[in-house]
Amino acid sequence: MDKETLMLTVAVLGGTGKEGKGLAYRWAKAGYKVLIGSRSSEKAVTAAGEIMELLDGTGSVVGMNNLEAAQQANIVVLTVPYAAHRDTLESVKEAVKGKLFIDVTVPLVPPKVSKVQMPPAGSAAQEAKEILGEGVEVVAAFQNISHEHLLGEGDVECDVLVTGSSKDARHEALKLVEAAGLVGWDAGPIENSVVVEGLTSVLIYINKQYGSTHSGIQVTGVSKK
Amino acid sequence: MDKETLMLTVAVLGGTGKEGKGLAYRWAKAGYKVLIGSRSSEKAVTAAGEIMELLDGTGSVVGMNNLEAAQQANIVVLTVPYAAHRDTLESVKEAVKGKLFIDVTVPLVPPKVSKVQMPPAGSAAQEAKEILGEGVEVVAAFQNISHEHLLGEGDVECDVLVTGSSKDARHEALKLVEAAGLVGWDAGPIENSVVVEGLTSVLIYINKQYGSTHSGIQVTGVSKK
Repeated sequence: MDKETLMLTVAVLGGTGKEGKGLAYRWAKAGYKVLIGSRSSEKAVTAAGEIMELLDGTGSVVGMNNLEAAQQANIVVLTVPYAAHRDTLESVKEAVKGKLFIDVTVPLVPPKVSKVQMPPAGSAAQEAKEILGEGVEVVAAFQNISHEHLLGEGDVECDVLVTGSSKDARHEALKLVEAAGLVGWDAGPIENSVVVEGLTSVLIYINKQYGSTHSGIQVTGVSKK
Repeated sequence: MDKETLMLTVAVLGGTGKEGKGLAYRWAKAGYKVLIGSRSSEKAVTAAGEIMELLDGTGSVVGMNNLEAAQQANIVVLTVPYAAHRDTLESVKEAVKGKLFIDVTVPLVPPKVSKVQMPPAGSAAQEAKEILGEGVEVVAAFQNISHEHLLGEGDVECDVLVTGSSKDARHEALKLVEAAGLVGWDAGPIENSVVVEGLTSVLIYINKQYGSTHSGIQVTGVSKK
């Protein structure tokens, strides 16, 4: 881990869920200081303890409520179910000013989760940008990664498409993708997040249709210089 | 080629463009009777002749205007630039009643073609469904395939996500995907076409960013039974 990583603190709001825990585990392993946020600080402390156990005691993962986590972090990652999206954003709005905000939320509308149904803003990430306002760069990423492989060591056979409100923000987010052991691609402006969020519904449909639990996508025909 | 294929006639409207010609070539090679449609029947005849040359005279490819092609075909495929989308649809509306309609159109809005900008209907395919009305099954497919490999023999390293207004229609379209030598996936209802159409803008962005001309995607973590 480099000096820059050592100084960075990542908050994972809704980090008691499977996706959040998986990402937190991988980032802590890569040397980031990780804060698990939850509506209940008790649950956050329990989840942090579970991740620390998986890490065999190396690394730093601490649990607290969402607001405290957002306040203490340099980078804030949101991994809540869509039903909690707006409320969580409103509750941390002041705390994330000037920070990089990474939205992992997929706006699934039960029971038809395999059908793309975007909110009026165009996507969850665009909704987050509307709520958080100027001064917060919003990036959308990690929506297509199946949680089941994140807590293991193995390769994840799904690339991460990173969209967001500025190129610098996408560049910063791509460092977190790499730190998690994943392959990431700058996929353009935040308007493109509808594709990446919607792709989750497509993959859920493909899972059902072809009998899988972890379909994903990989980008082909291009290599990183 | 099986008996069913032999009886099927596929019209490729806007088939004088690169994508349309590539698909027409592959389908003719697989034994489908192919009609190239264009606003100008003269251009359509020229394009059909070019494809026949590539086929060394085996196969059936005939050029005519869009309306005649739509009238004479069992399956109608639309490969026009988005600017011609609505007009072409209106012009063949009566001719495609009761047929399978495959929309390849990507609603790119120049000059920002790497930014997803969908029409009010949600996607080009949903717009086509609105215009064509009941009695026409609309499927969206082939939007992400780079034309440059279609006219060759080689493998195309990009899967085809097939969305559409009914499962039967998607199933029929998947046969055309296979006939073209491509790997296709049933990607769900027509509402999911926003993902597949929008993915073209994402891939254009990735091409620019990472220096390619033919990035694509492949579905991972799932196999066909």
